[in-house]
Amino acid sequence: MSRAVRISVIGAGSAQFSLGLVKDLCLTESLAGSHVCFMDISQERLEMIRNLAVRYRGELGANISFESTSDRRAALQDADFIINTAYVKGHRYARAVRELTAKHGYYYGGVNLGDFYQLKLMLDVARDMEEICPDAWLIQSGNPVFDGCTLMARETGIKVCGLCHGHYGCYEIARMIGIEHPERMAWQAPGLNHNIWLTHFIYDGEDAYPLIDQWIEARAEEYWRTHVATHTHDVQMSRGAVHQYRMYGLFPVGDTVRRGGWWYHTDLETKKRWFGEPWGGPDTELARPIYVENLEKRIAEMTRLANDPKASLVEVLGKSKTREHQVAIIDGLANDHEGQFQVNVPNRGALAGVPDDVVVEVPAVVNKKGIQTIHVGGLPPKIMVEQILPDWLDMERSLLAFKTGDRSMLLWNALESHQTRSYDQGMAALEDLLAMDDNREMADHFKFPSRL
Amino acid sequence: MSRAVRISVIGAGSAQFSLGLVKDLCLTESLAGSHVCFMDISQERLEMIRNLAVRYRGELGANISFESTSDRRAALQDADFIINTAYVKGHRYARAVRELTAKHGYYYGGVNLGDFYQLKLMLDVARDMEEICPDAWLIQSGNPVFDGCTLMARETGIKVCGLCHGHYGCYEIARMIGIEHPERMAWQAPGLNHNIWLTHFIYDGEDAYPLIDQWIEARAEEYWRTHVATHTHDVQMSRGAVHQYRMYGLFPVGDTVRRGGWWYHTDLETKKRWFGEPWGGPDTELARPIYVENLEKRIAEMTRLANDPKASLVEVLGKSKTREHQVAIIDGLANDHEGQFQVNVPNRGALAGVPDDVVVEVPAVVNKKGIQTIHVGGLPPKIMVEQILPDWLDMERSLLAFKTGDRSMLLWNALESHQTRSYDQGMAALEDLLAMDDNREMADHFKFPSRL
Repeated sequence: MSRAVRISVIGAGSAQFSLGLVKDLCLTESLAGSHVCFMDISQERLEMIRNLAVRYRGELGANISFESTSDRRAALQDADFIINTAYVKGHRYARAVRELTAKHGYYYGGVNLGDFYQLKLMLDVARDMEEICPDAWLIQSGNPVFDGCTLMARETGIKVCGLCHGHYGCYEIARMIGIEHPERMAWQAPGLNHNIWLTHFIYDGEDAYPLIDQWIEARAEEYWRTHVATHTHDVQMSRGAVHQYRMYGLFPVGDTVRRGGWWYHTDLETKKRWFGEPWGGPDTELARPIYVENLEKRIAEMTRLANDPKASLVEVLGKSKTREHQVAIIDGLANDHEGQFQVNVPNRGALAGVPDDVVVEVPAVVNKKGIQTIHVGGLPPKIMVEQILPDWLDMERSLLAFKTGDRSMLLWNALESHQTRSYDQGMAALEDLLAMDDNREMADHFKFPSRL
Repeated sequence: MSRAVRISVIGAGSAQFSLGLVKDLCLTESLAGSHVCFMDISQERLEMIRNLAVRYRGELGANISFESTSDRRAALQDADFIINTAYVKGHRYARAVRELTAKHGYYYGGVNLGDFYQLKLMLDVARDMEEICPDAWLIQSGNPVFDGCTLMARETGIKVCGLCHGHYGCYEIARMIGIEHPERMAWQAPGLNHNIWLTHFIYDGEDAYPLIDQWIEARAEEYWRTHVATHTHDVQMSRGAVHQYRMYGLFPVGDTVRRGGWWYHTDLETKKRWFGEPWGGPDTELARPIYVENLEKRIAEMTRLANDPKASLVEVLGKSKTREHQVAIIDGLANDHEGQFQVNVPNRGALAGVPDDVVVEVPAVVNKKGIQTIHVGGLPPKIMVEQILPDWLDMERSLLAFKTGDRSMLLWNALESHQTRSYDQGMAALEDLLAMDDNREMADHFKFPSRL
């Protein structure tokens, strides 16, 4: 017998995400009777989402109920699953930070302030869950997944699972190298979130890496010369990705490609060299506005649909499931409809060489028993010492800074940026960032341990 | 009953070191009858050392015998202790490397090639020891102590102990803050070699840190304004040292001060700001030639003495023991004359949070039973995540690069330099360095895993 569940979505105002969830729920029969609570601080968005959700359900005749609230703690009441997609500070804030660092000589960001607001929200939600719905699962979708999930798993007793789209990059690789039946592919790409590496890549029972090598040999140069990105994040087969593959012997997957070394990211020209035309990857002054504009266009379209009661939502949204895994994972946990998913959960031995209490991104079998990681063994030593372990230390520093409120750790971070040219520059940029109105709470939290 | 021992000194041509050893041996009665084998590739130096050693012994009427050889394996025969002080490539090589990187836009070095020649020599010696004198102790004095001792301890079964002068910085601190009886001081400064932190500092049973704080409060500014370094390495109480203390809450000791972040080292002016006049610390284009010149002057003086059979060596060299610990440690191991020393040995739990097979610098009790580390507990989390663990990863990368001969790891190193401004600059500097005549063996060893 299948079980209906109660799901709460924190930060439900992200129209695309919430409607995707509604679709997947309406199209998952075993979750019939389930209840979704949308939570956001924007009443306007909540009403829009609820309007669209109710109508979509109605058109399909599905049995899912909805409510909405701007009270975060109320949203946790009786929940079986919490999906946290919230971004405390929006794109405008990120842009203001970039503009301010630019004044200090940084290209596109450059000073990592450590996600204070996101970490604080995540920990607040997790602590509330401990109190209100201690047996619920938290599915964390908002970034930073790696830092945030590790923090929540360490500081609270709740069950945490982070999800990210990055691993879909495997299918992009497959498409490019001519794999026609991705359903006959098997792969593993373990690591840390945004730092995952294709250790296994099998097609029809055969190693598919030679197909990648053939593509590089025969077609890569032409692709790099002629390809125009079809979306801002279209970098999976970029020169930068192949360069990392040549350095490490394993292909980097998804957001891993965007990371790499600082030297891929010094300026627009360099970005284009590694990540192609026309934007140089997603993290440039050209790409970001387009990405944000597209999000806004989608919100505008949703708003239009919400205001047009005659519009057919099934026509617009379709009635096939999304590629998101949230609902399938919920169905696995609630109804034992077992599946294998790429998850971010505390390591406990799944990925060799990473401490047990660090959240790793690995495949897991999900069923009624829970989320059971597949012990994938280790990554090559070179990837460990140049990519995984330095990233782990970044995370540890980020969490220690967050917990201690030690401003000199933010300074150290600013100084460690490869764009920082002097102590005074790093210090000035940091102090200016902390003087932003939007960073007042952060400035209160972070104090120097002594006069420097 | 005391036991005579056989000691071999690899790289004995360093006159100051070898004569210090001779002095300490001649002045340690319990080691009477011991035998020293000087090994070096320079016959001329060997003869000079032997001449001076024999005469000094004669003047004191001590019972120590000497031989010399340029055959490294022969030197290991029947040895109880090997002291490795060798530098494969001299100061001229280091200078040529600096001049070449300067052409690529680097200030004073900037590209870390990873000590290939030193590591190779150390491992060769350790492997020969395994075969020829497997029960002997290796006392490693040449750098890199941290990387080299970890490598030898991991790759061979010999007993390794690294020594360094850095911890004497504690006495420099004591002197500056007005401690009149350093013999009544107790302190601990554990960590990794060149990365040690004053966790305990007791004078007459009281915490002496307040004396440091008082010095900083009352006298530091004047000291920084007026002090002129008395020797190139006179940086223990520099502004840079105090800045690190303010960042971390523990005082950095000895060479730790020279390390710190890249931002202390960007150019001469910056170096002077942090490490004072007139040289900006030991690692500048002003200080290094003076340091090297002083070494050469000492060699010249030794040569003069060697050529003047009438000179009284006791008059010149004195007859009190040096501050070196080699002979005292040997006496402890051979004759159970127990002492406590700052050593570099595999961790095995002595310093919390560092893997067991990594060589740490900690105090140890040395007696006939062996070198027994004192389990000092841990360093503060901030020092761990910003100083100790990143340094540990640097070492792991250095050893992995050495073992695999992967040139892209050298490239990564070059790129990770905070002085590198672009991928092409790092690559060009690396390739030019590997094209040096003096680096031919290294260039043969390091190959790219694939075309980049």
